[in-house]
Amino acid sequence: MTRTDITRLRDKASSDRTELDRLLDTTHVGHVGLAAADGDPMVVPTAVARDGDTVLLHGSTGSPWLRRVASGVPVCVAVTATDGLVIARSAFESSIHYRSAVLFGRCVPLSGPAKEHALDVMTEALLPGRRAELRRPTPAELAATLVLGLPIVEWSLKISDGWPEDPPDDVAGNAWAGVVPQRTGYGAPRPAPDLRWGIALPASVRQLAARGQTQSAGPDR
Amino acid sequence: MTRTDITRLRDKASSDRTELDRLLDTTHVGHVGLAAADGDPMVVPTAVARDGDTVLLHGSTGSPWLRRVASGVPVCVAVTATDGLVIARSAFESSIHYRSAVLFGRCVPLSGPAKEHALDVMTEALLPGRRAELRRPTPAELAATLVLGLPIVEWSLKISDGWPEDPPDDVAGNAWAGVVPQRTGYGAPRPAPDLRWGIALPASVRQLAARGQTQSAGPDR
Repeated sequence: MTRTDITRLRDKASSDRTELDRLLDTTHVGHVGLAAADGDPMVVPTAVARDGDTVLLHGSTGSPWLRRVASGVPVCVAVTATDGLVIARSAFESSIHYRSAVLFGRCVPLSGPAKEHALDVMTEALLPGRRAELRRPTPAELAATLVLGLPIVEWSLKISDGWPEDPPDDVAGNAWAGVVPQRTGYGAPRPAPDLRWGIALPASVRQLAARGQTQSAGPDR
Repeated sequence: MTRTDITRLRDKASSDRTELDRLLDTTHVGHVGLAAADGDPMVVPTAVARDGDTVLLHGSTGSPWLRRVASGVPVCVAVTATDGLVIARSAFESSIHYRSAVLFGRCVPLSGPAKEHALDVMTEALLPGRRAELRRPTPAELAATLVLGLPIVEWSLKISDGWPEDPPDDVAGNAWAGVVPQRTGYGAPRPAPDLRWGIALPASVRQLAARGQTQSAGPDR
């Protein structure tokens, strides 16, 4: 029994690295758990992206929690996508469609070309195509940014994507049951108030809006 | 300096309880951080709902992490909504619109009428109107469910909803900048394969689909 063994709802456990990568490559907010200096747990939401066998985190060199993570304390990073509501015939059986990854380990600070590459990966993860539209980071910006990598070694993945599982008595009753898919879409881009006249919407943003409208629903993959 | 003081980007800190409640009343997946039995941090995603001055969690009595939380160990619960992408003229200034609440404390198990009431609150939070459409929980279901309350006492809230803040040199350049709002919508409800013939879509699900389509974009509140 290790901490990445799934103890509850084992049928939802997956050891499929492809599924893990699919989640990490489409969900870019993670929750980092660590012990604070006083020993109590703290959880911080932050942008995450995958680069090969590493989960990347970044932030300001002035961030106390990120500096603590950079020092190599044990962390747990949770990446969660919610894909729909499971509407059963009882409150007890009602639930959520989700994909949940939990990774354990210690982060390693990146520097030099590896750090700059990791920042490019994060930029591309959050908005594909954006890197090539932007100037390069300045030395001052790089110096002000901490970039950390968590090796993808110790992890678990749990996927809930089934139908409600009501007992026969409830199925024979009059309550509706099913699934309502949930999806993330994007609204119309809003230009910044200080945007200079004549600068067109870039390809990266145009493609994002198109993707938001055609994204699949998540469940019943 | 306490752990709920915001150390970075202080202009984004909010001590507005109304804003906290607005986030807790619309975002129903939280991430619970705790120290596992071996002392290392763990983070678990779970459904959350607010009942007055309490954040409610629930799950199976067979869940090891939930039993540990029920024993009164210190926890940190993060509730995060992402509202859009902040697309700046550099990778450095690009970011995310978010609302992030972090609560600290210890959970208390609920029992008797308080427990049953809390389960009703969770059912209503996840799908408003659903409670009245369902049969009551059975004694066996109640016995199989742990319901915990975390008092809303020690918390912090951080809201990012501004425009990109590019330096003048970048504003004078040719890169586009702005915000792309992100929204959660709902797809068409899918009836369960074992749904009996002639059971119509209930009002709760019809209203959910309508809400998904008209939901506001989040940023620029």
